[in-house]
Amino acid sequence: MNGVAGVRLGTGRGGISASKVYEGRDDVLVMAIDPGASVAGVFTQNGFRAPPVYMAEERLAAGEVRALLVNTGNANAATGKEGFARAHTCCRMLAEKLEIDADSVLPFSTGVIGEQLPLEAMRVGIGKATEVLALDAWPQAAEAIMTTDTIPKLQVRDLEIGGRKVSIRGIAKGAGMIAPNMATMLAFVATDAGIERGLLAERLSRFTEESFNRVTVDGDTSTNDACILVATGASGVRADEESEGFWSALRDLMNELASALIEDAEGGNKTVRVLVEGGRSSDECRRVARSVAESPLVKTAIFAEDANWGRICMAIGNAGLEDFDQSLVDVYIGELPVMKGGLASPDYDEQAASLVMREATYGLRIALGRGSARGEMLTSDLSHEYVKINADYRT
Amino acid sequence: MNGVAGVRLGTGRGGISASKVYEGRDDVLVMAIDPGASVAGVFTQNGFRAPPVYMAEERLAAGEVRALLVNTGNANAATGKEGFARAHTCCRMLAEKLEIDADSVLPFSTGVIGEQLPLEAMRVGIGKATEVLALDAWPQAAEAIMTTDTIPKLQVRDLEIGGRKVSIRGIAKGAGMIAPNMATMLAFVATDAGIERGLLAERLSRFTEESFNRVTVDGDTSTNDACILVATGASGVRADEESEGFWSALRDLMNELASALIEDAEGGNKTVRVLVEGGRSSDECRRVARSVAESPLVKTAIFAEDANWGRICMAIGNAGLEDFDQSLVDVYIGELPVMKGGLASPDYDEQAASLVMREATYGLRIALGRGSARGEMLTSDLSHEYVKINADYRT
Repeated sequence: MNGVAGVRLGTGRGGISASKVYEGRDDVLVMAIDPGASVAGVFTQNGFRAPPVYMAEERLAAGEVRALLVNTGNANAATGKEGFARAHTCCRMLAEKLEIDADSVLPFSTGVIGEQLPLEAMRVGIGKATEVLALDAWPQAAEAIMTTDTIPKLQVRDLEIGGRKVSIRGIAKGAGMIAPNMATMLAFVATDAGIERGLLAERLSRFTEESFNRVTVDGDTSTNDACILVATGASGVRADEESEGFWSALRDLMNELASALIEDAEGGNKTVRVLVEGGRSSDECRRVARSVAESPLVKTAIFAEDANWGRICMAIGNAGLEDFDQSLVDVYIGELPVMKGGLASPDYDEQAASLVMREATYGLRIALGRGSARGEMLTSDLSHEYVKINADYRT
Repeated sequence: MNGVAGVRLGTGRGGISASKVYEGRDDVLVMAIDPGASVAGVFTQNGFRAPPVYMAEERLAAGEVRALLVNTGNANAATGKEGFARAHTCCRMLAEKLEIDADSVLPFSTGVIGEQLPLEAMRVGIGKATEVLALDAWPQAAEAIMTTDTIPKLQVRDLEIGGRKVSIRGIAKGAGMIAPNMATMLAFVATDAGIERGLLAERLSRFTEESFNRVTVDGDTSTNDACILVATGASGVRADEESEGFWSALRDLMNELASALIEDAEGGNKTVRVLVEGGRSSDECRRVARSVAESPLVKTAIFAEDANWGRICMAIGNAGLEDFDQSLVDVYIGELPVMKGGLASPDYDEQAASLVMREATYGLRIALGRGSARGEMLTSDLSHEYVKINADYRT
């Protein structure tokens, strides 16, 4: 596979965690970025954000970014000043290997909370990763950031702009936002298009809203979530606000990575798109979609393939919309109307609705009848496996 | 058992639902109230509130209340105008039997959503219930409002005020706010003290905040939740703002009913009190307590008896407090410190913490270190049974 000019990747095993999850797997990823790239990032808003999250956000704002350092097996969260000191040390280790400024390294961690990062293991992992830096190591990178994910998540887009080739690559991990390791969502996307930094940040923020912020498994966001977008400019092609083909490819790549997170959700067997339309604002549509997508009662019904639309009503009603009029609301399972105007649909066919729900992927559509805005969420089911995985795992 | 002077109760079986849940059980409760009583109520804020909820709230505001009519087996929710008409008809049936004004009857329903209330079954149930009205039928009443509850929930307080006897009785149903039947929470409390209506409403609202609004199983509130407080005055004793003994008995009775709901939570094996202290306001303490109490990751850890305090951090961080400083936060499992100042406690003993978590009932205490306010929630665990019950049930 071709990579992205200006970004070299390397992975290595430091042995950061003794947990079986990581047995025999690389646990350190280094992404080395050529000088002159634009970089943007979005970070978790969780109040217990980990030291590396604070550091990455600060350094991104302060100056040039020359490398990303990612480790699994330890989240370096709830680790206090010592956690900051150790993340600093790791960045310095990498900076020395790459002969760059230590402040130009952004750290990312995912794994167990409340334990200090093992420095010797990090040193070993960083050493190995920097020895194998290569443009085409995206597949290895996608594997090295996995925790309890069952499949690596890599998306590739190549397109032409003005007769010249532009590449976009993205990797993500999550195991459904619910995994034993706190389900940190990490995503790293890079392109060799040249993009002005403000525009890059604005588009990352917008596309993140539409992709990663649209998937939910249980509403828990982690202490370490982050998404980084790098534009090296090494292709010689500039992308600006007019570059519709480029932005649409980038948006599509991020949407696919987000969907892959739900498809790989721990204990999840279903991918359900909850589309809410006819709202007064996209914000209220998203609120309703989230209430439905996160309701344990709805999610157990999805698992049971039970066309229990009363639970959907209940969840819609729990979103707390002002001046809400239930008599305007229609609900569809797939294309089948189950509720019309706040009542059981006259055409309601429970068997047909249950057939739709046997599919691995389908949509729930809710029409609020009070406006023209839309919003959506992707969700999975709440299964026996969800409880098993999250109850049986020991930190 | 003695009852409450001025309130007669009767139950009967109408056969409202064909579901096995209700097999052989009374499904109608009538509470007949003597003239002159004060009545207060709190009602679900769910946007898909059922017709009887609208009617009960409206009638309560409009005039004297002479009877409560409760049915199980059908929630009369998502039933539209026909749902209102049928609730009206049922109230009229009862009013004729009791020879009172139909507008003085408040209707309450719990059960399946989206089906019209069967009028003939209601007529039969109302007929039987009104034939057996009695002061001492509180135990039968507690049973008649059960849906998937496994035990009836009845609380009794008798006290003396100025040498005269005052009685308080309360019943509730819920099956943990999560039950197949949408887990409607209904509570009916009556006393023979005489209480001014404004004061009654104020205290009901305050005590509901501290009791029923403090219990959570999965954050889903139902379309039909309601809590009614009746003060008949038939004891000849007036309770006013100074009557501390009376209010403390009433508060205690409501707290016990709320705890009983959690203890009977479907699929729940644990009752865990999440106490948050050291906040800037009781509101933010409640917000943190709710985030912890409703986190599926925390609840599976409670089920697994796993002292996974990283999940508690994550849930605290998800409450979205402003100017939150994680380095001020302490977390205790029972009396054991597991986190101090945002870090693993130096005394942390995972085995000891896991021992606490083997208890059926224990507390999680979170000290935010930024103020002096407190707030709490009661929660249960997220078990295999939760998924089983909610997935296997067919409406």
